[in-house]
Amino acid sequence: MFQVPKEEIANRLVAFQAALVQHRIDAAVIRQNTDLYYLTGTVQDAHLIVPASGSPCFLVRRDVRRAEEQSPIRPVVPLTSIKELPDHLDRACGSRPPRTLGMELDVLPASTFFFYDEKVFPKDRIVDVGTLLRQVRMIKSDWEIEMMRRAAVISDAVARAVPEFLREGVSELELCIELEAVARKAGHLGFSRVRTFNLEIYFGHILSGPEAATSSYADSPTGGPGVSPALGQGSGTRVIGRGDLVSVDTMVNHHGYLNDQTRNFALEAPPAELADAHRLSLELHAWLREAARPGAVTGELYREALEWAASRPLSQYFMGSEDASRVSFLAHGLGLEVDEFPFIARGQKTMLREGMTFAFEPKYIIPGIGIAGIENTYRVTARGLESLNLSGEQLVVVQTGPASGRSGATGGQRSAARPPGE
Amino acid sequence: MFQVPKEEIANRLVAFQAALVQHRIDAAVIRQNTDLYYLTGTVQDAHLIVPASGSPCFLVRRDVRRAEEQSPIRPVVPLTSIKELPDHLDRACGSRPPRTLGMELDVLPASTFFFYDEKVFPKDRIVDVGTLLRQVRMIKSDWEIEMMRRAAVISDAVARAVPEFLREGVSELELCIELEAVARKAGHLGFSRVRTFNLEIYFGHILSGPEAATSSYADSPTGGPGVSPALGQGSGTRVIGRGDLVSVDTMVNHHGYLNDQTRNFALEAPPAELADAHRLSLELHAWLREAARPGAVTGELYREALEWAASRPLSQYFMGSEDASRVSFLAHGLGLEVDEFPFIARGQKTMLREGMTFAFEPKYIIPGIGIAGIENTYRVTARGLESLNLSGEQLVVVQTGPASGRSGATGGQRSAARPPGE
Repeated sequence: MFQVPKEEIANRLVAFQAALVQHRIDAAVIRQNTDLYYLTGTVQDAHLIVPASGSPCFLVRRDVRRAEEQSPIRPVVPLTSIKELPDHLDRACGSRPPRTLGMELDVLPASTFFFYDEKVFPKDRIVDVGTLLRQVRMIKSDWEIEMMRRAAVISDAVARAVPEFLREGVSELELCIELEAVARKAGHLGFSRVRTFNLEIYFGHILSGPEAATSSYADSPTGGPGVSPALGQGSGTRVIGRGDLVSVDTMVNHHGYLNDQTRNFALEAPPAELADAHRLSLELHAWLREAARPGAVTGELYREALEWAASRPLSQYFMGSEDASRVSFLAHGLGLEVDEFPFIARGQKTMLREGMTFAFEPKYIIPGIGIAGIENTYRVTARGLESLNLSGEQLVVVQTGPASGRSGATGGQRSAARPPGE
Repeated sequence: MFQVPKEEIANRLVAFQAALVQHRIDAAVIRQNTDLYYLTGTVQDAHLIVPASGSPCFLVRRDVRRAEEQSPIRPVVPLTSIKELPDHLDRACGSRPPRTLGMELDVLPASTFFFYDEKVFPKDRIVDVGTLLRQVRMIKSDWEIEMMRRAAVISDAVARAVPEFLREGVSELELCIELEAVARKAGHLGFSRVRTFNLEIYFGHILSGPEAATSSYADSPTGGPGVSPALGQGSGTRVIGRGDLVSVDTMVNHHGYLNDQTRNFALEAPPAELADAHRLSLELHAWLREAARPGAVTGELYREALEWAASRPLSQYFMGSEDASRVSFLAHGLGLEVDEFPFIARGQKTMLREGMTFAFEPKYIIPGIGIAGIENTYRVTARGLESLNLSGEQLVVVQTGPASGRSGATGGQRSAARPPGE
């Protein structure tokens, strides 16, 4: 069975404890699934007490046996009642209240916070430690980068499968379903964690033609019509035809670690504006690969990228076609969650460091015509950015075979794919 | 495009306003996606102000145009800054602070609550209204029941497809992936909403053989080995063989409305204990269909069902094989979320009413042998329960054809399915 290595867990705990000391927090009590997985190697119904110094205390209500199998932390202590929690905390801290405790106030529901604050730790002061832990998680170890590389292999399997399924007469939704199955068979866990309230990510945005420019509530440059107001984004039932550009934006999960990738495909020749937009996106990626070095400030990179785009064609469509639908970020950190630090976004002050990872997605949304732009998951290195993604970045033109023009959604000759200019 | 009917929205708002009046809450400010969809018919980045009396105020940051397309509420008011919110609230309420405001404190993150409490509505008192809205949502309209029936059609498509894919040599995960694609092609949105912190639902639990009895952190009678400690539940890579019982527990989504179903399959003869367990589960369903009438108290139904099981064979395996892994509920409400009211669970005081819906899942978890038991989504009627599910409830025995015994995971003759005794 796959296990998070013992040294990983040890290093993470040390880094988190240093952050606790620095912020004068006596102990953290960790509850959320992602954070538990990061600090223990397992997702259980558990509380992890991390004192600013000394050994952590891993309290598991359920499932103790699986926690022992999956986590290197010892001992795994069965917790039968929440009433036992304060005693464990006193022992782990070597002190009694009042103390400053950290909990994940950025994700813990308000009513759950009240319960801990009033009933469980009434004499301690509880402060947010979710943001602090996200800052620790922001710097990926070599092992984590390797996990993210493996996730990129899944994305590549999806991108390679597109020409097999993309043909005239197939709908966005049908294409999306086929690609989901490819991703699952390639190891995608089927589920990607998010942190932000109300943020919902399913597999991705597989969008085509002019309707691809449909904006949505999602805090993403692309939205898409979706198939239901219950979801409000993503693929619709639009049938893909000749001349459409198809944007394949997918999120996949390898043992918790994510890869986010967008590639552009076209059924024969796409609109010239979208071919231009694709090329501009590539140029901006090339610029950022050089510019985003350790020490660069994310908010300044954002401003410079906007200036770059503003001085070139199609700038009015960059990251949204209207003020109301334009998003104010170009990249979002990712790792175990879709929305990690850092964000390359307006006003951000984070300075890049080696080991940070983010998905950069400069895109053009052109009403009445469609969308274009690619997305890579990058790692910050001393020499600039390294893309973890493996798929070719060119616009892939899929030729419809002579028989498939009337073949509809379920049949037809296999399509041939080639990058333009070959 | 699908729309939630105008009368639905109007009736829901009236019911919610009556609850606000009853609890002396001056206005509710609704933020969460599920609740917004319920009360407006659309999921947007929005605030819905519902005063105890008078017209609601639908404030949308993004996407205003789609909100207008999908929601019958007028006007849709663009919200450009959160600073405008207090003025809108004053106008909607016809009063100024201090007031009692309701927000969804059961889902709103603590830090988000602090923001509203300290910066946006500093003079008002904020109380939880999530629980109140869940109580309103607990009673489904005829239209909602119809949506849930359509979700059950998707579940039935999945159950019907099982004999096509279930054969010796296929793994749980492979079977699960095939069934996911069937569900998606039948209309499943691919995503099911939950309310409880840390509760994670993907498509379902497709579990087989003795390992199906693997418990997990999930608050569900079945857990499953899963394929990664990052997820910690669900199908594993176990290869299904002759004599295995296969439990197919799926959650599907039709325009936001869910159906939860479990059906049992076997590759030739399953272990006698599991055939018995399946039969016992059916008998308990038959008992509950009669017992669960309007006026029955959920906690008492729970106690009676446990007594029923305790007086019959295999009682030590009912709803879990050990104290630590045994769950303390038999049914969970569902509708727009997986974890709605009511719960048929220990100590619950909710009295059943017509229009309630819940998934009842009496299951037996037998270590070293496997799991059995079926699950239906029920509606409470004046005459007892009506199952919304369409799939046959018998244990379906799939015969492996003479050629398929050695065919492995990717080939082999189509299997034939028959209920036992035919």
